[in-house]
Amino acid sequence: MASYCLATYRCYDEQADFNKKAQSIAVGLTVGSWTELPEARKAQMKQHLGLVVSVTVYEPGELTPGSGRCADIRIAYPDLNFSRDLPALLVTVFGKLSMDGKIKLTDLSFSAEFLAAFAGPKFGMQGVRDLLGVYDRPLLMSIFKSVIGQDLDGIREQFYGQAAGGVDLVKDDEILFENPLTPIEKRVKVCMEESARASERTGQKLLYATNLTGSTSKLADQAKKAIEAGANALLFNVLAYGFDTLSELSADPDITVPIMAHPAMAGALYPSPEYGISASLLLGKLMRVAGADLVLFPSPYGSVVMPREENLAIKHALLTPDIPRDYLYSPMESTERAHNAQQASTPDNAEQRDTQAGSPALRASFPVPSAGIHPGLVPLILRDFGTDVIVNAGGGIHGHPMGTIAGGQAFRQAIDATLRNETLEEAAKHHPELKAAIEAWGVKS
Amino acid sequence: MASYCLATYRCYDEQADFNKKAQSIAVGLTVGSWTELPEARKAQMKQHLGLVVSVTVYEPGELTPGSGRCADIRIAYPDLNFSRDLPALLVTVFGKLSMDGKIKLTDLSFSAEFLAAFAGPKFGMQGVRDLLGVYDRPLLMSIFKSVIGQDLDGIREQFYGQAAGGVDLVKDDEILFENPLTPIEKRVKVCMEESARASERTGQKLLYATNLTGSTSKLADQAKKAIEAGANALLFNVLAYGFDTLSELSADPDITVPIMAHPAMAGALYPSPEYGISASLLLGKLMRVAGADLVLFPSPYGSVVMPREENLAIKHALLTPDIPRDYLYSPMESTERAHNAQQASTPDNAEQRDTQAGSPALRASFPVPSAGIHPGLVPLILRDFGTDVIVNAGGGIHGHPMGTIAGGQAFRQAIDATLRNETLEEAAKHHPELKAAIEAWGVKS
Repeated sequence: MASYCLATYRCYDEQADFNKKAQSIAVGLTVGSWTELPEARKAQMKQHLGLVVSVTVYEPGELTPGSGRCADIRIAYPDLNFSRDLPALLVTVFGKLSMDGKIKLTDLSFSAEFLAAFAGPKFGMQGVRDLLGVYDRPLLMSIFKSVIGQDLDGIREQFYGQAAGGVDLVKDDEILFENPLTPIEKRVKVCMEESARASERTGQKLLYATNLTGSTSKLADQAKKAIEAGANALLFNVLAYGFDTLSELSADPDITVPIMAHPAMAGALYPSPEYGISASLLLGKLMRVAGADLVLFPSPYGSVVMPREENLAIKHALLTPDIPRDYLYSPMESTERAHNAQQASTPDNAEQRDTQAGSPALRASFPVPSAGIHPGLVPLILRDFGTDVIVNAGGGIHGHPMGTIAGGQAFRQAIDATLRNETLEEAAKHHPELKAAIEAWGVKS
Repeated sequence: MASYCLATYRCYDEQADFNKKAQSIAVGLTVGSWTELPEARKAQMKQHLGLVVSVTVYEPGELTPGSGRCADIRIAYPDLNFSRDLPALLVTVFGKLSMDGKIKLTDLSFSAEFLAAFAGPKFGMQGVRDLLGVYDRPLLMSIFKSVIGQDLDGIREQFYGQAAGGVDLVKDDEILFENPLTPIEKRVKVCMEESARASERTGQKLLYATNLTGSTSKLADQAKKAIEAGANALLFNVLAYGFDTLSELSADPDITVPIMAHPAMAGALYPSPEYGISASLLLGKLMRVAGADLVLFPSPYGSVVMPREENLAIKHALLTPDIPRDYLYSPMESTERAHNAQQASTPDNAEQRDTQAGSPALRASFPVPSAGIHPGLVPLILRDFGTDVIVNAGGGIHGHPMGTIAGGQAFRQAIDATLRNETLEEAAKHHPELKAAIEAWGVKS
């Protein structure tokens, strides 16, 4: 049976016939024309024809107060039409269409066949936990504060301060590129030395994600150079290079460390309700399919804010073990009916989720809600994410009144307290570091 | 003297102190913190500090009726902070910042030093004209109608029809990927055969842009395979792969044919006034810097509509010979004043355009306004673009009432008439093909 990938769009128009619009997308982005084809040709072309799966119209104000007239349109695209890579799929479903009025790509589901071309995260959440040997709590990550213009000694000092407070991961600033002061091999060497030194104090392991930058064709070599120098994780600005580049890096057997996806540039794509690509697709599904082991995204708590609902949708996309239900699309019945081009909308029961055993699986990607995080937000983060989360802080560690080491400790104290169902105020009585953090930044609930 | 690249943002906020916001961008995206640094450190870090060049605030309704309160903010970023590639520059100026509220990246200017790392288009407009030997008129391009599901015979027939009508270029559909029916080498061979056959009839040369697709790491090989099979141009979905990939392909000395940039996915980035990247930067400057010899973009005339003003801004970015004025930024005076972190806005005269001889040059990219073009639009296109344009049609050629060959002829007749200052109606009296086109689609003025 033919297999399809399914795209969901939200489309705004004050007066459009959305069924007609859906039909024109399904035809226009696949076989080009349909009704005028001779019958013999139709029989040949049918397997290439896009199908309208559903059209749901919302009148003005129906979705939210003040929302415009819009529709959710779902179109199934035959796998036959594109190669097994994300550029091909994205160009098919949202290449030309992205420029055709107020339309946002809100979701994608993949055929089992398409998804089978992607191994997904090489480590995933479990693999990262295995590397660190930490299973029973959220992880803690620290971000270099400002590393531009720092020399290796500055990096060394900053690294130790972060590591010694008990963080599990340290990441480079995403705007640190190859530079004469701290070239990647030297930087990695220095950081891994400090990591070892901190481990003696904390008894913990640590992953350091060094920033992978430069020309696209040299990224894999650059990664291997970093790994050879001792790097045990990589940071990567995925959207500046495209999902396929992540996909190829992740699939490279010589890249033997987890890849952490940074969302740089994502804000150019997800925030508008009328244009772009939804956050849960961009920073959730696509990152996971392309093989990100960890994914950073703006949290709903801190300084760079994303609505909580959108955040939870990203979380779901990164974590759900239910790949069949959430990632796969397979049309249940013969697509005869939908092929009747005059019938714009076929009922939703033409769609079924593939729940058979043997469906492709994808490791979970570790969610890392970021920006503006301080210890007083830990209870909120854990309420929303449970333990399957990396608490990630920059200023909330470096800016601690008692110093960077105390900054990491305060976070660990906040995490432990929350896991014990203790309030931070209560825990602060026994932990001066947490107490100072709360006095500086407060507790949010 | 320190060199800088300049980013311009439009930023919406009902009550923000835009001067403060600008200052926080300039510091936050470069050295991280400033006011709290000790003086000795400031002296070291000064060369890495971003500078606020200007802040222009617009009150509600000032820009357009109903427009919100906003500001145009210009920040200069030291070249020292990033490597000489577009991902590094874009992540620096709009990585994290893209996620920080309603903000759009509207322009970039480059330092001479940064720009010197880019050769720009290998052929450019003049090179494409040289290949075709056509200098005195706009070129005409035809797009394959629907090629998905077509076999080589179908491609062959369609190609000849397009070529024989007198078009100068034929491009693949951007959604045609590697497939068993028409793999790139066979497709190129067939198309180039038909091109030669059509040339015997028309006496013209022709460029066929075959679609370069697949995994990022294999694109260069794929391009060379196509060139070896006879391809004399390439089509590339730049935004699905990132500007750096275009840049590397364009700089590859073995890729000896022009590269045509398709704007697929661009609509996810440029249309919102509040988010994303402006069309003139995305499809203009960045495409040219990255080396696109020809650039397609939605026209203001046809089915996928872009405002005319935005279109002309793209045209300008692609064509302007005045690289110093339009692409280069260099601060004139010592940046002392701007370094005074409390002084949020430095006067505009701190900026100067580098007009010295010896500045880097970039060949012009051929503008190709596209979508919904029919012969009746030719006078409008030529009014806006003069002869430095490629008239690009799909349905307007294939859908001609007298057939595809007549479709191409009608366009050529429309172009010739317009260049002679003759109305299409007048010209149609002697040209049945143009007459039929006008009857089918009308004339717009």
